[in-house]
Amino acid sequence: MGRLLIKNAKALVGTHPAGVERVAGAAMGHLPAVEDAWLLAEEGRITSFGTMAEWPGVSDWNGLEVIDATDRYVLPGWCDPHTHTVFAAPREEEFVMKIRGASYQDIAAAGGGILNSARKLRAMDEDDLFQQAEARLREMMRQGTVAVEIKSGYGLSFESELKMLRVARRLGEALPLQVRTTLLAAHALPEEYKHDREGYLRLITDELLPAVADEKLADFIDVFCETNYFTVAEMERVLEAGARFGLSGKVHVNQFTSLGAIQAAVKHGALSVDHLEVMEEADLFALDGAATIPTLLPSCSFFLRIPYAPARAIIDRGCAVALATDHNPGSTPSGNMNLVVSLACIQLRMLPAEAINASTLNAAAAMGLAHELGSITVGKRASLIITRPVPSLAYLPYSFGSDHIDTVIIDGKPERSGEALA
Amino acid sequence: MGRLLIKNAKALVGTHPAGVERVAGAAMGHLPAVEDAWLLAEEGRITSFGTMAEWPGVSDWNGLEVIDATDRYVLPGWCDPHTHTVFAAPREEEFVMKIRGASYQDIAAAGGGILNSARKLRAMDEDDLFQQAEARLREMMRQGTVAVEIKSGYGLSFESELKMLRVARRLGEALPLQVRTTLLAAHALPEEYKHDREGYLRLITDELLPAVADEKLADFIDVFCETNYFTVAEMERVLEAGARFGLSGKVHVNQFTSLGAIQAAVKHGALSVDHLEVMEEADLFALDGAATIPTLLPSCSFFLRIPYAPARAIIDRGCAVALATDHNPGSTPSGNMNLVVSLACIQLRMLPAEAINASTLNAAAAMGLAHELGSITVGKRASLIITRPVPSLAYLPYSFGSDHIDTVIIDGKPERSGEALA
Repeated sequence: MGRLLIKNAKALVGTHPAGVERVAGAAMGHLPAVEDAWLLAEEGRITSFGTMAEWPGVSDWNGLEVIDATDRYVLPGWCDPHTHTVFAAPREEEFVMKIRGASYQDIAAAGGGILNSARKLRAMDEDDLFQQAEARLREMMRQGTVAVEIKSGYGLSFESELKMLRVARRLGEALPLQVRTTLLAAHALPEEYKHDREGYLRLITDELLPAVADEKLADFIDVFCETNYFTVAEMERVLEAGARFGLSGKVHVNQFTSLGAIQAAVKHGALSVDHLEVMEEADLFALDGAATIPTLLPSCSFFLRIPYAPARAIIDRGCAVALATDHNPGSTPSGNMNLVVSLACIQLRMLPAEAINASTLNAAAAMGLAHELGSITVGKRASLIITRPVPSLAYLPYSFGSDHIDTVIIDGKPERSGEALA
Repeated sequence: MGRLLIKNAKALVGTHPAGVERVAGAAMGHLPAVEDAWLLAEEGRITSFGTMAEWPGVSDWNGLEVIDATDRYVLPGWCDPHTHTVFAAPREEEFVMKIRGASYQDIAAAGGGILNSARKLRAMDEDDLFQQAEARLREMMRQGTVAVEIKSGYGLSFESELKMLRVARRLGEALPLQVRTTLLAAHALPEEYKHDREGYLRLITDELLPAVADEKLADFIDVFCETNYFTVAEMERVLEAGARFGLSGKVHVNQFTSLGAIQAAVKHGALSVDHLEVMEEADLFALDGAATIPTLLPSCSFFLRIPYAPARAIIDRGCAVALATDHNPGSTPSGNMNLVVSLACIQLRMLPAEAINASTLNAAAAMGLAHELGSITVGKRASLIITRPVPSLAYLPYSFGSDHIDTVIIDGKPERSGEALA
């Protein structure tokens, strides 16, 4: 890791001051920027930046990589705080079943869905899983993602949940992007515990959690709280057990039903509540003033044709909304954050500035990385996107079918290099 | 143009027999294919293909370009039979207005919409227009499009409509993809004819059409038939005038209102009726057995958040549905046919085979090019997509946020080259 200079940028976007580790409510509509700018990164960190008019020049050009970003925007790289990107196989056959009229529930009843993924994952060895997930993460990096949260939850057994988390940890070591991991053993009740919920919950709280903590395999704990999956009381029990091992909650709630899970998650100090497609007044009230970050997954709504989360109502309550892909083979076969930003603007009616804040600073916050990532701030990791020449920031979500990324820089090093580097 | 050999393809897809120039109804669900295959192109045309088991070998390797398509599908390139891709400027500022709550009608009232594009286009010279549109078409070619229809309709004056069509014709000469052009002077009533509908209609029928015919600038005639735009009677008058100059109709109908325009277009022998978001039983009845091709534009519905066209009902009536992007700066700022195919499956519930037939053979038919393009058939243009390695054809629309194209070949010549060529 040497030194990197970006010159002549049309603007550095998302230059939030140090110490601002999320933006909420009306402040989400403000995206601080420095126009006609330069930025210097050293040893992988942003060390200084400013306007070209005030550029101090370079005294030592030795080993300095220079990027001319004329007509191009420089943004913080995307953070993706909710994915299931370690999985054994895509499930496009279920997609075709759905087109032919099968419901999500029909597919689950036919042995599809999460249990389908679990069967295939259990049968696959760690190296194969690693290679598949690595290819997915490399594509996501080319699409501008510099940090990602990855959940377990397709193992649903002691050994296979550990296997998934080990793969996720290895990915974090092997690839330049930041990886945070989450134990989601409470994703579905596995076949062999169909008549023993209590036994599976004990496996999670009494066996898996100690083993995961012992190997330091997870940063967070998650539960799919939904009718036919896990109840609010069960979620609370798992969150409490996680807390004893120092794991904060990031939970699946309100995707199909409002069960009171948001209120419970807030009470337990969860870092984020994710999905939120179905929101009642009591759910919005619970988020009002809470530290818990609502994380929205518009690609999932798009693919399942379920309602989009009411982003406007949540932002208008003063919350710090984050966005994520939900990348998984069943409900969201896409890890593309650019499309998430477009969907947020087109379908959730978030302003471009809100969607960008939600996919950078707030998304970093939703995985506990806002001190490191999510804004162009001196001291943070130099993990950046340089766009192709585009007429405005709003053009990025507006022209939803185009690839606007020229160069992706992770920790000061270009990972995807386009014309700006040539 | 020399000779090109594709070897070891996982499958050649869309190998419709010669003479089949559209597929309709239940037949749309069948996409003929040759597995484990080779294909030879000479002088830009497909000259032979078959299975590797029956490969006759090559006697003359001289000047033969060879592509190894192991694990890759080969498809006919996308045809895009409805675009407005010659325009002066994107309109992302209107997009932001809409997020803030303005309606399509509000924007039109505020001087936005089509008249906004017309103001900017009239002020721009032909070379600037050409360069902008060329960049858009090059991106569309990288995304697999090998033929495109381009409409006028942002000129709305004698000189500016001709200017647009001249640009479209020049694009067809300068770029390798096929370009068909359409006179859409009846796109909106220009400001200066606000109180003289009759005068503008006469300009179209008595002045523009003869001039367009004289310079051979258009292949088709189009009318935006909609409340506050042009009536069914006005559409019929323009279609009749077009017919006198040998131009078939391709008309905008049933986007917001069912006015009886489909019945009228079918009566006048229109080649296609486009949009169809709002369909009543009488509209479906009129399409039943008609030669007119219903062309659906799902990216427009997606971006405007209006209903999607009822593709299933139209196919189940036995029609030959085509798909197109509708690329334009107001309602569809995307020329990406891959995303159209995904939207067709995810939102319109078309099967992958139906969506691919609709974007190749039927799309070629909707611009009168099915004798030349739209299938892998001996004698047709060798304009093809070679995918990256993907597990199945259904995976293409399923993984909606990914770029699955490795190589795009137009008239036997690779235009976008990926790994398969290396």
